[in-house]
Amino acid sequence: MDVQGIVEDIVSEVQPLLGLGAVASYIPSLGDVPAENFGVCVAMSDGPVYGAGQWQQPFSIQSISKVYSLALVMSYDYDSIWKRVFREPSGTPFNSMVQLEADNGIPRNPFINAGALVVTDRLLTLTGDAAGAVRGLLRSESGNQELDFDAAVAASEAEHGHRNSAMAHLLASYGNLENPVDLVLENYFKQCALRMSCEDLALASRFLARHGVSAGGTPFLTPNQAKRVNAVMLTCGTYDAAGEFAYRVGLPGKSGVGGGIVAIVPGRCSVAVWGPSLGPNGNSVAGIAALDAFTTRTGWSIF
Amino acid sequence: MDVQGIVEDIVSEVQPLLGLGAVASYIPSLGDVPAENFGVCVAMSDGPVYGAGQWQQPFSIQSISKVYSLALVMSYDYDSIWKRVFREPSGTPFNSMVQLEADNGIPRNPFINAGALVVTDRLLTLTGDAAGAVRGLLRSESGNQELDFDAAVAASEAEHGHRNSAMAHLLASYGNLENPVDLVLENYFKQCALRMSCEDLALASRFLARHGVSAGGTPFLTPNQAKRVNAVMLTCGTYDAAGEFAYRVGLPGKSGVGGGIVAIVPGRCSVAVWGPSLGPNGNSVAGIAALDAFTTRTGWSIF
Amino acid sequence: MDVQGIVEDIVSEVQPLLGLGAVASYIPSLGDVPAENFGVCVAMSDGPVYGAGQWQQPFSIQSISKVYSLALVMSYDYDSIWKRVFREPSGTPFNSMVQLEADNGIPRNPFINAGALVVTDRLLTLTGDAAGAVRGLLRSESGNQELDFDAAVAASEAEHGHRNSAMAHLLASYGNLENPVDLVLENYFKQCALRMSCEDLALASRFLARHGVSAGGTPFLTPNQAKRVNAVMLTCGTYDAAGEFAYRVGLPGKSGVGGGIVAIVPGRCSVAVWGPSLGPNGNSVAGIAALDAFTTRTGWSIF
Amino acid sequence: MDVQGIVEDIVSEVQPLLGLGAVASYIPSLGDVPAENFGVCVAMSDGPVYGAGQWQQPFSIQSISKVYSLALVMSYDYDSIWKRVFREPSGTPFNSMVQLEADNGIPRNPFINAGALVVTDRLLTLTGDAAGAVRGLLRSESGNQELDFDAAVAASEAEHGHRNSAMAHLLASYGNLENPVDLVLENYFKQCALRMSCEDLALASRFLARHGVSAGGTPFLTPNQAKRVNAVMLTCGTYDAAGEFAYRVGLPGKSGVGGGIVAIVPGRCSVAVWGPSLGPNGNSVAGIAALDAFTTRTGWSIF
Repeated sequence: MDVQGIVEDIVSEVQPLLGLGAVASYIPSLGDVPAENFGVCVAMSDGPVYGAGQWQQPFSIQSISKVYSLALVMSYDYDSIWKRVFREPSGTPFNSMVQLEADNGIPRNPFINAGALVVTDRLLTLTGDAAGAVRGLLRSESGNQELDFDAAVAASEAEHGHRNSAMAHLLASYGNLENPVDLVLENYFKQCALRMSCEDLALASRFLARHGVSAGGTPFLTPNQAKRVNAVMLTCGTYDAAGEFAYRVGLPGKSGVGGGIVAIVPGRCSVAVWGPSLGPNGNSVAGIAALDAFTTRTGWSIF
Repeated sequence: MDVQGIVEDIVSEVQPLLGLGAVASYIPSLGDVPAENFGVCVAMSDGPVYGAGQWQQPFSIQSISKVYSLALVMSYDYDSIWKRVFREPSGTPFNSMVQLEADNGIPRNPFINAGALVVTDRLLTLTGDAAGAVRGLLRSESGNQELDFDAAVAASEAEHGHRNSAMAHLLASYGNLENPVDLVLENYFKQCALRMSCEDLALASRFLARHGVSAGGTPFLTPNQAKRVNAVMLTCGTYDAAGEFAYRVGLPGKSGVGGGIVAIVPGRCSVAVWGPSLGPNGNSVAGIAALDAFTTRTGWSIF
Repeated sequence: MDVQGIVEDIVSEVQPLLGLGAVASYIPSLGDVPAENFGVCVAMSDGPVYGAGQWQQPFSIQSISKVYSLALVMSYDYDSIWKRVFREPSGTPFNSMVQLEADNGIPRNPFINAGALVVTDRLLTLTGDAAGAVRGLLRSESGNQELDFDAAVAASEAEHGHRNSAMAHLLASYGNLENPVDLVLENYFKQCALRMSCEDLALASRFLARHGVSAGGTPFLTPNQAKRVNAVMLTCGTYDAAGEFAYRVGLPGKSGVGGGIVAIVPGRCSVAVWGPSLGPNGNSVAGIAALDAFTTRTGWSIF
Repeated sequence: MDVQGIVEDIVSEVQPLLGLGAVASYIPSLGDVPAENFGVCVAMSDGPVYGAGQWQQPFSIQSISKVYSLALVMSYDYDSIWKRVFREPSGTPFNSMVQLEADNGIPRNPFINAGALVVTDRLLTLTGDAAGAVRGLLRSESGNQELDFDAAVAASEAEHGHRNSAMAHLLASYGNLENPVDLVLENYFKQCALRMSCEDLALASRFLARHGVSAGGTPFLTPNQAKRVNAVMLTCGTYDAAGEFAYRVGLPGKSGVGGGIVAIVPGRCSVAVWGPSLGPNGNSVAGIAALDAFTTRTGWSIF
C-alpha cells in the first residue's frame, strides 16, 4: 500500500477544514499558533515512517502526554492505579467536577484532567520526577533527545490554572493525592507543555502498535498492558466524543488541545496528526477528518 | 486452534462463579431461571460452530435485541437515526432520566433504554411491526424458524414497566417519538422478550463478524455499517461498564439482563455466552469471565 | 390604613409591566388569555374585602390548587404525608426528574409537580375524589358555589401531559403512588383546571391568615397546621424563585402558570393577584411587582 | 411572659438529646468540645436578656459568621453583591461544587461556602480586612471587646481546607473573586474561627430583630435591608434543611458546625442556642429542638 501517497493526499484534502473551529486560547501561548498548520505522520510497526505537511514542526502535546504517564505507571506497578481511578468513559465534559463529587474523589478515567492528576501523582511517588520520567520515555522512544518542556506554556498554565488547582485540591480533600498539591500541579503542567512534532509522536507511540515493545526492541509494556492502554484510549481518549471517534475513525486515539491526535492500528502502525483548530469537544477538526480519511483509504480498522 | 477444546475448558473454569451475583428478578419470570446454567457458542466467520454447556437452551435475550433493531434501522436509512439519538457512552446507570433531561430528549446512545425506545419507534415507522422485523431478522440469520417472543415475559415487562413508560412519555414530551407511546412500548417489550439459545445468538450475530454479509451470503449491512455497529457496541454495549469490558475483554459486546452476552471478533467469529447471574452493572458475571478467558486463550483481540 | 386606595394604586402602577414576559402557552387554552388583564384582591382576617382591576374575573388557578390539596391532606392525617414527600426547596426547575431519581422517588416538596401528584394520590385515597374535595373546599371557603373545573383546560392538559405522565409513572416505579397512574393524573389535571377569580382565591385562602379558622368560623386546620402550610409556601411556593420571592415580597406565597399568586400575611389578611404574563421562573411578572408594592406600601411583612 | 422560666425549662428538656448526633470533627480542635454542653440566650428588642445553661461559654461560631459578613457588605453597597451570588436555597449539600459549575461560577446563595467566599472577597475589597471588619461589628454589637479569632482553629481550617481551597480556585476560574485566592481563604477561615458565647451572639444579632438599629441606637442597616437579611436566613440559613427548619421552627435562622444557631423573631427578640452535637444536615440537634420548644412555648412565629 502506498502510505506515503495516502498521507500526501490527506494533507490536500483537509485544507478546506483548516479554518473551521477555533485554536485553543485559554492560555496566550497556545492561541498564537496559526490555524493553517497541518501535519501527519505514520510510523509502521516494522520500521518505515511516512509524513506530510508540517509533520516535523513541534507543537504543544498537552493531554496526549496522559497516555505516556499512564503507560509509565502501568509499567511500574500495573494494576494498583485502578484503585484510585476508574476506567469508564466520562459522559460529561472533560474538566467537570460533578462526577468527582458523585464518586467520592475517584476520577472517572485516567484521561480526564482529574484522573491524569492522580496518575501524575502516582508517577511522582514512583519516580520522584513525573514530568522528567515522561520526557525521558518520549525522548528514548522517539529518538529525539532535544524534545523538551515549553517553559512559557507551563508557566502560563500555572498562572491560568485555577480550574486544575481546584481539581487537585478536591482530590486532596478526598485523600486521593500522595504528594503536595502544588508539586503535582507543577509536574502536570510540565508534562502537558512538552513540545513534539507529529514525527516525534508517531515514533514515541509505536510501542502501543507493537504490543509493548520499545524502540530499543525490549519490552516496555507486556502485550496485555499495551492492549489495555489501547482499550482505555478507545473508550476514554477523546474527551466526551469517544463514541463519535470510535464510530468515525474506529481506532484507539488520544487528543490534546494543542491540536494533536495520536491513533493506533494495533499490530500495524501508529499515526500522529496535528491541526490546531478545535471542534466543540476539544478535538482537532482537521485531525479527526484526516484520521477518518486514513482509515477509509487504508481499510485499517479494529472493527 | 482447538476452539472446541477452549470452549469446553471455559465451561469448567467458570463453574465456581455461577453462584456469584444475582439473577435479575424485577419481573417474576426472569427470576425463575436457575443460576447454575451456563453456555457458550462460537460461530466462525467461515462456517464452523463450536459450543459447550447449555449452549442450545433458550433464554430471554432482553437488551441484546437492541443490536438487531439498530442494525435493521441502519440497513433501511443508515444515518438519519443519529439525529434522534447520540452515540456516546452514557457515564450513568442505564435507565437514568437525568441525561435525557440535560440533553433535551436526545438519548445518549441506542443501547440505553431511552435510545432503544427511539430506535424501536423508528423501526416501527419503517416496517409497521418493529418486534416482528427483529424476530424475522433473527430467524433468518440463525436459521431457527422456531425462535419467538415469550408472551409471559412481555406481559410481565408491561405490567412492571412504569420506568420504561416514564421514559417513553418523557421522550414523547420532547417530540422524540413518531408513534403512540403504548405501541412503542409494546414493540419494545416484545423484542426484549425474544427467547434464543447461545447457538441462535452466535449464528444470528455472525453478520457483524463478516462485514455485514448475511447468512444467505448477500449483504445485509455494508462493511462500513457493520464496522460502525461494532464501534457502538464497544463504547456503549455493556451499560456503564463499557470501559471495564473493553479493558478486560477487548471486544465489541452487548449484554442483556437475561444473562446473555454477544461479542464480536471482526473478521473472525461471533461469540455468545449465557450465565443468568448478574454483577452490579447488570452484566453476567460468568459471561464476562468466560469472554475474558476466551480472548486470553485465543489471543484474539481488536487491540 | 386605606387598603382600597393601595390596591387601586397598585393596579395603576403595574400597567407598564403587563406586556413583559409571556403568557403560558404549553396548552392552547391558557395561551388565549389577554396579557392586559390584571386584578388584585385583599381579604382581611376580620372581614373587609378590597379589590381592584379584573379582580372578579375567573382564570385558571393551576398550581395554586396545590396549597388546598396539601391543606386537605394535612387536615385528614396531618403528618403521614411527609413520609412520601420532602418539604425542602427544590433548587432545580419545577418539573425536573433529576431530583426524583436522586432521592429514590421521594419528591422534594409538595408544590413541585411530582410532590403534588403524591399529595393528590393521597387525597384520592382519603376521599375517593381528590379533585372534588379540592373544589368543595374552595366553594365553601370562597362562598362561590359556582366555581368549577374548566373541562377544556383539563382535557388539554391530559392531551399535552406527557411530562406529567412520565413523572407519575416514575413515582409508580418507586412504589410512591397508591392509586392507578391514570386516575391520579385525571384528578391532578382537574384540580389544576379550576377557574377562580382573585376574589374567590383571597376569600378561599383566608383560613391561612386566620390560623386555620374556616369561613364558617370553625377550625379547618389547627393553628400549628396552618402555620406549617405557610412555612412550606414560603420556602417552596414559587418554583425555584422562592428565595427571590422571600427577598422581594417577604410573605408566604403560591403561584400558578395561569398568572395567579396567593400570598398570606399571617394574622392579618390574604392577598390574591392575577396577571397572565409570566417571567422566566413561571411566576406572574406583574403579580410579583404588585405584591412587592403591597408589602412596601403597607409595611406588612413577616420579617 | 416568663422568658427566663422558659429558657430554663428548655435547658432541662433538651438534656436527653445532648448525646444524639455527632460533634463536628473534620478539624481536631472542633472535635474536642464535650457534647454535654448546652446554652441558650434570648435578647429582647427592648432590652432584657435571658440565659440558661452554658450561655456565657464561648464556642466556635463557624458559618454563623456569614450573616454578619453579608450584613456588612449590604451596609456598604447594598445590592451590588447580588450580581455575584444568587439568593436561592441550594437544594444540594452545602459544600457541593455541582451547582457552581451548572451556574457558571455564581454561587446559589451567600450562606453556602462558595457564596460566603464571594461575600468575604467583596468585604475584603471594601474594607481591606474582612475578618477584622466582622470582628469589629460583633464586638461593638455584643459589647464584648474581648471576643476574638481562635488562631488554632483558623490554622487547622487552613491545613484541612482542601475543599474550600478547591471552591475558591473554582470561583477564581470563573472570574468571581476580586482578591487573591489565598487572601480570601485566610479571611474566611479567620471569620469562621471567631469564638463567642450565646450571650455574645444574641446581643450581636439583635439589630436584625430591631429593623437594623445597632446596639448604639443608630441605624446599621435600613429596615428594608434588615428584613432582607432575615429573608435570606429563612430560605438559606440552615444548609439543605431550610424547609425543615421553617416547618418546625418557623423563624429566620443561621447555624454553624460549632453547634450554634441564631434565630430572629422580627420586632421582638434574637435567640442564640448552642449544642455541639450535629444531625445529618450539620445543624445542632439539641439547638433545633430548643428553638422548636421556644416557639411552641412562646407562640412567637412569623407564620
